[in-house]
Amino acid sequence: MARGSSGESVLDRAVRILAAFTADEPALTVTQLSTRTGLHLATTSRLVRQLTDLGLLARDADGGVRIGMRMWELSARAAPTRGLREAALPFLEDLHAVVGHHAQLAIREGAEVLFVERLSSPGAVINYSQVAGRLPLHASSSGLVLLAAAPAELQEEMIARPLVAFTPETITDPRRLRAVLAEVRRQGYALNAGHIHPDATGVAVPIRDAKGHVVAAVSVIVPNRPEARATIGMLQAAARGISRSLIE
Amino acid sequence: MARGSSGESVLDRAVRILAAFTADEPALTVTQLSTRTGLHLATTSRLVRQLTDLGLLARDADGGVRIGMRMWELSARAAPTRGLREAALPFLEDLHAVVGHHAQLAIREGAEVLFVERLSSPGAVINYSQVAGRLPLHASSSGLVLLAAAPAELQEEMIARPLVAFTPETITDPRRLRAVLAEVRRQGYALNAGHIHPDATGVAVPIRDAKGHVVAAVSVIVPNRPEARATIGMLQAAARGISRSLIE
Repeated sequence: MARGSSGESVLDRAVRILAAFTADEPALTVTQLSTRTGLHLATTSRLVRQLTDLGLLARDADGGVRIGMRMWELSARAAPTRGLREAALPFLEDLHAVVGHHAQLAIREGAEVLFVERLSSPGAVINYSQVAGRLPLHASSSGLVLLAAAPAELQEEMIARPLVAFTPETITDPRRLRAVLAEVRRQGYALNAGHIHPDATGVAVPIRDAKGHVVAAVSVIVPNRPEARATIGMLQAAARGISRSLIE
Repeated sequence: MARGSSGESVLDRAVRILAAFTADEPALTVTQLSTRTGLHLATTSRLVRQLTDLGLLARDADGGVRIGMRMWELSARAAPTRGLREAALPFLEDLHAVVGHHAQLAIREGAEVLFVERLSSPGAVINYSQVAGRLPLHASSSGLVLLAAAPAELQEEMIARPLVAFTPETITDPRRLRAVLAEVRRQGYALNAGHIHPDATGVAVPIRDAKGHVVAAVSVIVPNRPEARATIGMLQAAARGISRSLIE
């Protein structure tokens, strides 16, 4: 394997380049890529050319660099989330049709929530989550449901860690987090008004596999109104349906 | 760049490994990967280890290798299809709710259709397309809509080429393909009963950008019944809505 003076392999550097693109910055120049990755301009330029030849990156008409169609195709056709997503989509569609706004599917990746799918309406309430986007576990309703079912060590680690606040409502007090996690386990859902944005309420329930282990969370994001509670039953029914589809 | 005796770079070989996984074979052993890619077992093993360390691949509990969550995340969050998919999803949901079976979004990649999204019902009519899956342009309704709007050279190339038959109904006669493409342009839709599977009808219409160029196709797959024609108007309305969302 070719390694630079830093000891990094070609693959390490290629991943650094691929990781520079985000939903907010899907197109970057080679210079921006060099700055974002800390790689020399010449190295960046050579890697971009190689990755473009392979279809993992693509060039815009105006010279910007983007994730290539081949990259999307390689990861999407055998995606690790594919089975879960296919089991969940019909139920997400039903939830979205009835509740409106946003219906979401999420999994835990380490100490973060990773959003696997989201169905949204035009004009829906504000929502910071994005498909393939992450949020810290303590902040969102999906995250609290997933953390409440996570190994005890991870829960203790999160409780001991400084917790970032998105709004004054975000849980940042360790004792409150411990109490909320116990409550989520007892109730079987998380309902959080204004934890990520003052105007939005998240409601999430766990999805379980055949052994009863929590493998994902299904959630809705709706405006802060008392009616938000009415979504709990729908979510619990959807989660049971998704579990059944997963097991079949 | 490290190159083997074949002159192939590490990145080339890594992509060969990533490309070995499909929707039907999402998990492979290192030995299977070596066979599928034609790479030496030792090379395959080393690359799998490196790709796993980077999260681009992941190991199952039983030792199988899969596409990793990080690979999916890197390609999904800045996916080249993201804008189109987000514009189309609400309309796909409406189509799917009304028509049932399958509602799909596709683009052209060279001489193939690439399916970007699909909403399906349990118990829907059989459908060979898969998300991130490909079909040849001449065979499916989406493909015919995209081919009818493709550069004339590509159309002539397809007409001159041997055309694979999925069923006795698949268009394989060059004169018939030429006539059908002209008809699709005149009518503004493609309706094909039994071209890919004897039991299914595909109906597709083009999605245009601000300049009027065809950038994608929206389609439904339904059983072979006269009512399939009733979906044309719905698809045309959906395509106009998606175009409007794309342009805004």
